[in-house]
Amino acid sequence: MDSPFSLIAQDASSSARAGLLSTRRGKIETPVFMPVGTQGTVKAVTPDELIQLRTQIILGNTYHLHVRPGEKIIEELGGLHRFMGWDRPILTDSGGFQVFSLARLRRITEEGVYFQNHLDGTPTFIGPEESMAIQKSLGSDIVMAFDECPPYPCSHEAAAQSLALTDRWARRCKQWWDSQENRPLVFGIVQGSSYSDLRCMSAGGLVEIDFDGYAVGGVSVGEPEPEMFLAIESSVPYLPESRARYAMGLGTPPQMIEMIARGIDMFDCVLPTRLARNGTAFTATGTLNLKNAQYLRDQKPIEEGCKCPACRQFTRAYLRHLVKANEILGLRLITLHNLHFYLTLVRQAREHLLQGTFPGFRKKFVTDYQEWQSDSQEES
Amino acid sequence: MDSPFSLIAQDASSSARAGLLSTRRGKIETPVFMPVGTQGTVKAVTPDELIQLRTQIILGNTYHLHVRPGEKIIEELGGLHRFMGWDRPILTDSGGFQVFSLARLRRITEEGVYFQNHLDGTPTFIGPEESMAIQKSLGSDIVMAFDECPPYPCSHEAAAQSLALTDRWARRCKQWWDSQENRPLVFGIVQGSSYSDLRCMSAGGLVEIDFDGYAVGGVSVGEPEPEMFLAIESSVPYLPESRARYAMGLGTPPQMIEMIARGIDMFDCVLPTRLARNGTAFTATGTLNLKNAQYLRDQKPIEEGCKCPACRQFTRAYLRHLVKANEILGLRLITLHNLHFYLTLVRQAREHLLQGTFPGFRKKFVTDYQEWQSDSQEES
Repeated sequence: MDSPFSLIAQDASSSARAGLLSTRRGKIETPVFMPVGTQGTVKAVTPDELIQLRTQIILGNTYHLHVRPGEKIIEELGGLHRFMGWDRPILTDSGGFQVFSLARLRRITEEGVYFQNHLDGTPTFIGPEESMAIQKSLGSDIVMAFDECPPYPCSHEAAAQSLALTDRWARRCKQWWDSQENRPLVFGIVQGSSYSDLRCMSAGGLVEIDFDGYAVGGVSVGEPEPEMFLAIESSVPYLPESRARYAMGLGTPPQMIEMIARGIDMFDCVLPTRLARNGTAFTATGTLNLKNAQYLRDQKPIEEGCKCPACRQFTRAYLRHLVKANEILGLRLITLHNLHFYLTLVRQAREHLLQGTFPGFRKKFVTDYQEWQSDSQEES
Repeated sequence: MDSPFSLIAQDASSSARAGLLSTRRGKIETPVFMPVGTQGTVKAVTPDELIQLRTQIILGNTYHLHVRPGEKIIEELGGLHRFMGWDRPILTDSGGFQVFSLARLRRITEEGVYFQNHLDGTPTFIGPEESMAIQKSLGSDIVMAFDECPPYPCSHEAAAQSLALTDRWARRCKQWWDSQENRPLVFGIVQGSSYSDLRCMSAGGLVEIDFDGYAVGGVSVGEPEPEMFLAIESSVPYLPESRARYAMGLGTPPQMIEMIARGIDMFDCVLPTRLARNGTAFTATGTLNLKNAQYLRDQKPIEEGCKCPACRQFTRAYLRHLVKANEILGLRLITLHNLHFYLTLVRQAREHLLQGTFPGFRKKFVTDYQEWQSDSQEES
């Protein structure tokens, strides 16, 4: 088929680009941020609220939905879109990362992975074909190849072996879909740990298989930021311009901007929702820990000028009270703010790419943003 | 001043009535259900959502807000309405019930109650004047007199002594407001435990003081339902027709209808929000425990024909999944449904009173509703 990805604009000073990714549920403007809906819901948020935040696509977790309620139940009920009331595109991960990070008693074979699920210990097997079948049952619009995620750090030898297995699994994933009609987009995942030669080899192997798009995996697994950037920089040059590129599980706001500058088109990250549940809000100049005593009487919104539902109606003082009192409304409102922040930031990056002003935007944003600025002022 | 309450319609077969209660923030159509906003938020719900549910008035808890963030902070920030973004009326309780149910190391004197708050044990004193001052700082539109709430069961002698103290405190509360301009409505609280003679005596004493409205307190404190009805029946006849009557902390849906038939105009209850957080949804035929396995594939909404945001968009199967997975969206949606159910039920009672069809409505609703029907089918 024709490439599902078309380039709209490119930045002259970096590898950043704006594009359009066509899925069977409509086109996605890239760069794009995808809120994470692990268990069939973006945590604490309704589909209507996601639409109001101009969410184009969300991510669903294959492993979690396989374990509960089970993809067959979801398929019976009309698929994940209908189950959760979301009719825009959904990308599902392969389950690989969760099998390796959450499940117990793993045994990895050429066929796939035997494990006990983290909920009730039920013995389960997932290999490439099983992962594809689960993602098909869910009704995903972008499915990810089943990969092995080596831990960090990892020796070159172990990373190379793992990579070879991921490559063989990737071929089986692609083959599984070759006989399927009206198939979703299928993305391969570049692995190779911190080793540039392995990243290059991995990308080369996947491109030979010819996926609809490519992800960089095995990043944001505990490595220092320079290694994360290196992993991206060692992968992107070997991926075709004509395919979308997705950095899995990233990152902080400036990391996303820097990843866009390195040629990445798609992001998913739990930070905006997870930190919200801990009372932390994102702003253009860094994060606020709303538990801090300094906000007790603060009548300002989280961020001046922000158009999100929390900032339009509520003060930091009120949000602080809700967070301190463990009120669900507090994490709800901060979640909306944080998702709005992430979605707006990536949309702004796209607009600057279209207008040719990305370099200035990148420089100003990354300079202004101070990581975790308020954590040092945390209440004792 | 003129009576803030005017009668609009009365039921010929019972003591039920429809009325209008005028507050400084507008008129309230009675009978009315007031969602409980203990800590400056109706749990998990935004003010916009409360408006969409046609909420006329909410309740705030004096004790909780005094302990955190403190009424002085709220006053500085413009009062409770502005703090939480709610511009319709607010009724605040007196703090008495929470002092007696939550706080530690209580010592009751003629002046008031010494206690340690339940959060950090800070020694605190609240008497009638302190309670009035806190409620004034919060900016409440309907304030409740500070009362002693005896435990259940309670001897006649202890109940009589407690009642006498509550009566003296009630006079001090009323006096405190006598010198205040632009004061809110002030309600007295009938006590007297399970003793009809004491309920009569309490009501008589309060009416002599001449409050703007009257509550029946000391109900829903663990007594059997017949005693609860008896406490209401022993109080209402001694209260003036020209004042609103409020049954504090009640109740199940049929209890509310039966209380309306006994002349009650106002209700507050944590059941719709509290049970929602446990996965229990109200319907006209009883409650559903959405954790139950029977809903695994159930494509129906919680209640057929319900116009609430949960029933318009989501299935029992999806809600069950969310509840089982401890997803906040699950309790959010069930909370909206339950509040919609309570608010709609009491509004329907009013409409039937206006149309003269209350007796049939009462009979059918109370007959059809089966208490806790699905609890017996609970998953093991």
